[in-house]
Amino acid sequence: MKVTLITHTPEPEKVVAAAAKLCYSDKADIATLMNSLDDPEAIRKFIENLMKMHHYSPLEHISFTFGIEGVSRSFLAQITRHRLAAFSVRSQRYCAEDWSAPVVPPSIANDKARAEEFRIAMESAWSTYRQLLEMGVPKEDARAVLPNACATRMLVTMNARELLHLFSLRCCTRAQLEIRQVAWKMLEECKKVAPTIFSQGGASCDQTGRCPEGEKSCGRLGKKKETEKNCKSEPKKS
Amino acid sequence: MKVTLITHTPEPEKVVAAAAKLCYSDKADIATLMNSLDDPEAIRKFIENLMKMHHYSPLEHISFTFGIEGVSRSFLAQITRHRLAAFSVRSQRYCAEDWSAPVVPPSIANDKARAEEFRIAMESAWSTYRQLLEMGVPKEDARAVLPNACATRMLVTMNARELLHLFSLRCCTRAQLEIRQVAWKMLEECKKVAPTIFSQGGASCDQTGRCPEGEKSCGRLGKKKETEKNCKSEPKKS
Amino acid sequence: MKVTLITHTPEPEKVVAAAAKLCYSDKADIATLMNSLDDPEAIRKFIENLMKMHHYSPLEHISFTFGIEGVSRSFLAQITRHRLAAFSVRSQRYCAEDWSAPVVPPSIANDKARAEEFRIAMESAWSTYRQLLEMGVPKEDARAVLPNACATRMLVTMNARELLHLFSLRCCTRAQLEIRQVAWKMLEECKKVAPTIFSQGGASCDQTGRCPEGEKSCGRLGKKKETEKNCKSEPKKS
Amino acid sequence: MKVTLITHTPEPEKVVAAAAKLCYSDKADIATLMNSLDDPEAIRKFIENLMKMHHYSPLEHISFTFGIEGVSRSFLAQITRHRLAAFSVRSQRYCAEDWSAPVVPPSIANDKARAEEFRIAMESAWSTYRQLLEMGVPKEDARAVLPNACATRMLVTMNARELLHLFSLRCCTRAQLEIRQVAWKMLEECKKVAPTIFSQGGASCDQTGRCPEGEKSCGRLGKKKETEKNCKSEPKKS
Repeated sequence: MKVTLITHTPEPEKVVAAAAKLCYSDKADIATLMNSLDDPEAIRKFIENLMKMHHYSPLEHISFTFGIEGVSRSFLAQITRHRLAAFSVRSQRYCAEDWSAPVVPPSIANDKARAEEFRIAMESAWSTYRQLLEMGVPKEDARAVLPNACATRMLVTMNARELLHLFSLRCCTRAQLEIRQVAWKMLEECKKVAPTIFSQGGASCDQTGRCPEGEKSCGRLGKKKETEKNCKSEPKKS
Repeated sequence: MKVTLITHTPEPEKVVAAAAKLCYSDKADIATLMNSLDDPEAIRKFIENLMKMHHYSPLEHISFTFGIEGVSRSFLAQITRHRLAAFSVRSQRYCAEDWSAPVVPPSIANDKARAEEFRIAMESAWSTYRQLLEMGVPKEDARAVLPNACATRMLVTMNARELLHLFSLRCCTRAQLEIRQVAWKMLEECKKVAPTIFSQGGASCDQTGRCPEGEKSCGRLGKKKETEKNCKSEPKKS
Repeated sequence: MKVTLITHTPEPEKVVAAAAKLCYSDKADIATLMNSLDDPEAIRKFIENLMKMHHYSPLEHISFTFGIEGVSRSFLAQITRHRLAAFSVRSQRYCAEDWSAPVVPPSIANDKARAEEFRIAMESAWSTYRQLLEMGVPKEDARAVLPNACATRMLVTMNARELLHLFSLRCCTRAQLEIRQVAWKMLEECKKVAPTIFSQGGASCDQTGRCPEGEKSCGRLGKKKETEKNCKSEPKKS
Repeated sequence: MKVTLITHTPEPEKVVAAAAKLCYSDKADIATLMNSLDDPEAIRKFIENLMKMHHYSPLEHISFTFGIEGVSRSFLAQITRHRLAAFSVRSQRYCAEDWSAPVVPPSIANDKARAEEFRIAMESAWSTYRQLLEMGVPKEDARAVLPNACATRMLVTMNARELLHLFSLRCCTRAQLEIRQVAWKMLEECKKVAPTIFSQGGASCDQTGRCPEGEKSCGRLGKKKETEKNCKSEPKKS
């Protein structure tokens, strides 16, 4: 799995500050407003306040484009359920798949017997796939035998508001491990270029101090400091 | 594959007519406007005109909810790329899959040798899946070995404008057969309850008299009358 | 101001229950699932649980169409900022406005001196508007002199999830009175046809027991029982 | 009126090319793919082809943020109907308005008698506004007397696909002059940084060679070369 921040709106926190200030500033025209935003420390404090007041709409002006690769088709099914996003995904209709690197869940990879079962199934699936292609079946149909473990890659673009929403759901311990790992990596990248906005990023409990999972809660919230460490490192195990 | 229109906005064409008339009607309040829409033939003519003028925004007020089942996970990946929609999909994380009815592409099913290859691959995949479950692997991870052919089911809701957009792409001969079949069935259902709106539904060429596919065009447009028959029946072959 | 529920997805809570059950139900096909939902009391309990777990995506399948009239152009500017919605609005480009019923904020209407100032301004604005029309200015340009108080009407369609979001912002005492009144009336209508889903509807504090407004909070949350009464009746004063 | 391109995704056409190539490229990982995009001329040709094939989804990865000021509240009502966008708008609830620069439609400004009528109406509206404020009416209510001509300013962010859609509607001679002028200026700015993508930008007829306006068509399409000149210059007249 590899997550790369391919590009993003330049000076993202300055743009957010400009958008927010525009709404309430009484006099300045836009050029004056932009020019007045020359003190990074002042911007930082302003954004901090904005986030505290849940004034999120200015976050929609800045967007982040990620390259995500070495992830499974199960991951694809989950990430594409976020609809306020742009996706460009390697096509199984037009590209031939090779079996070199299926995505193995750690619960399988970390156990010899399970891993062996899995390896055999993968070899068999790809062998049938190649066989069907040779028999003249089009790629788009032969892929019917390919497993969810099949690796894919994609470009994903989201704005900062939607990213915070994605993190609230997908950084949570109730999300499946793979997408949780990707979400934490995306968050890490975001923090490098928009640290104030994303400093509170993470699962619902990180962002709001509340867990909406009811009886299915992981209980992490209660022992926050300890689990924060665990949670963030846990996805890196594999 | 089974496509059912589960529910929809009642009296859809009347609602669209009301929305469109509201924009330009000079005097009436809304109740008067609704009451004046009592002549189905007048509504039909009005909607016909609306569609001719490409005045599509009133179509967003009416929505249609479909049950779609016996479709593959490949289909799922394609339909969920339409983002102005609501989806509820059977979860592979929480439901155990059984292999009773994988979705077999006709290019495989209609050829004995291919079908036999395919059948063996399916049995093998599900056998590994069950094996992994027995070894204690959680469903959400064991599903890594499940194939795209795995059947799923879902509820999908879209408004009429987005449906026409979906049809323009997915009724096209360049769409994969499975989603094309579903799209034509959805269109058929829509025509039963909103015949005027959907009378021109279908691929881009049906809706606009133009093909955007360039050199990849199927050429159907040129020999329309003949191919229309072919195209609409073709998806039913399987 | 008048808010009418023009139409909505039939049996909305049954549809939501079906969508939610489909995700986790192991065996049934969709027809069996729909048929099994025959006990209103069971549906009610199921939905209650769903709402408690913040499992909101099934709410997107059901939509509600409102007629809203006798509201100001200021209201229009606010409601159209909700983007997951369909709008059909009386056009000021093509319809001539009459001044018979501008929308007067209570802070003006309830004070004689203010109301008189306001009345004179309205008469003057409409008189100039008519004058410009007579001088040959097109409606779309003459409207430049029309005030925000100008009454308009519209059809608005939203799904239940987006409605709950709108209520969280617009039922709040920090929202302007006019849109707050409309929001509470919309909520009232929703409760009549989907009482379980909307029973917790209202401002953020009603829905989550939390106020995100920080130092700008109205303090209503602290003295909930009392203010709930006040808040809901307050918008009806005018 | 002033339209400024405040910021945009860096190297926009390279990002679009990467997204499009990713879908169909058989071997490369994302880093290799990005590195291979080093020939501007090759990118230009690739994008040209993409646009010809109507393969628009990669355009969603790049976004453009505009500062728009000196526009009327009528313009605001129109631009906010585009919902796939981020808006931050000067608030009339919290900012006091001054009358120094209302937005005057040319059909009024270019005629002495009309302009005088208009000027008197503006003075009167602002005088009442100030009067109401002095009488203790909150800004959010006093604004009820402010006219559509009131100037506002905003930050607007859209992706390239949605921009092309906006241009198709708002560069059209059937759009009102003010939004048409803004749309053409936005297009001009876009062309400076993504010339290949936006080279065909403009009204529907510019983008598709077709006019959807039926009997309300301006006829510009028939005498294209001549009117193109007229149309693009026409909005600059005022």
